[in-house]
Amino acid sequence: MIDKIRIIGIDPGSRCTGFGVIDSDGIRHHYVTSGYINIKGDELPDRLGFIFNEVGKIISQWQPLTMGIEQVFVNKNVDSALKLGQARGAAICAGINAQLEVGEYTPRAIKKAVVGNGSADKEQIQQMMKLLLKLDFVPQSDEADGLAIALCHANHMHVKTLGIVSKVRGGRWR
Amino acid sequence: MIDKIRIIGIDPGSRCTGFGVIDSDGIRHHYVTSGYINIKGDELPDRLGFIFNEVGKIISQWQPLTMGIEQVFVNKNVDSALKLGQARGAAICAGINAQLEVGEYTPRAIKKAVVGNGSADKEQIQQMMKLLLKLDFVPQSDEADGLAIALCHANHMHVKTLGIVSKVRGGRWR
Repeated sequence: MIDKIRIIGIDPGSRCTGFGVIDSDGIRHHYVTSGYINIKGDELPDRLGFIFNEVGKIISQWQPLTMGIEQVFVNKNVDSALKLGQARGAAICAGINAQLEVGEYTPRAIKKAVVGNGSADKEQIQQMMKLLLKLDFVPQSDEADGLAIALCHANHMHVKTLGIVSKVRGGRWR
Repeated sequence: MIDKIRIIGIDPGSRCTGFGVIDSDGIRHHYVTSGYINIKGDELPDRLGFIFNEVGKIISQWQPLTMGIEQVFVNKNVDSALKLGQARGAAICAGINAQLEVGEYTPRAIKKAVVGNGSADKEQIQQMMKLLLKLDFVPQSDEADGLAIALCHANHMHVKTLGIVSKVRGGRWR
């Protein structure tokens, strides 16, 4: 039996970044909060600062111990890859700035972890999050992805439990 | 006659990030320091954390008031665009985390500012930095780009002097 840990999952995007926070012992998962950040600002540095600061505020408010983030593969154009990369960089740095460890998961691993099918669609993930986390609402799509990433990270943590538990006992968990 | 301000220029890259720090009143530029960061770490979050933390340390040590960064246009593949985007995101967030304002400049604007020719090659920039900043060494290529970006930012600052001077008088300048 291991302690519960608090996990934040981030679905980074250059226009909207989703997030989900859960408490999990690796088997049982409890919903804490979730939402999405509509990214504001005209200039790129302002937009990246917005992501960095907003994710930082969420971490500071909800005090997760660890962060999961989607490992992206872009097959669109270089311009969208660059934008997405910058948004991801800002979100990851917000985690690092708060001394979180950050785990990356492929979209396929995330879908497989939460729906049991690596090619599940967005709506299936939204419905599955409602079901698994006993929500009385269907989360918005980026928000559902944030929660799914947190769950995937929770499963992964369960596998390498010992390291985490010792960290949890160190302090930040409540 | 305006006060001098301290400027950091960043040439972000996923393998090596160059930086240059100068003092400038918009007309006369003085070399302060420069160098490049060879990015370490196996996993991406470690590598982005490395950039974020190292750039943060440089800012904290040298106390620039403002940051210039290259605005990139990638015409290679989406994978390198994503990597570069992430590295840029991390460098910009280090500036934002230290409350610097961040200005972006196109490669063409940077070359034009320091060599007078928008299509100057790397070696020309290195030689020009040695000359303009009276260095007794030829800076490494990414390092020279960092310095060139700082100079370009200095010229740009000179144009919109008033805003900056009021900020300088506020405090961090020494």
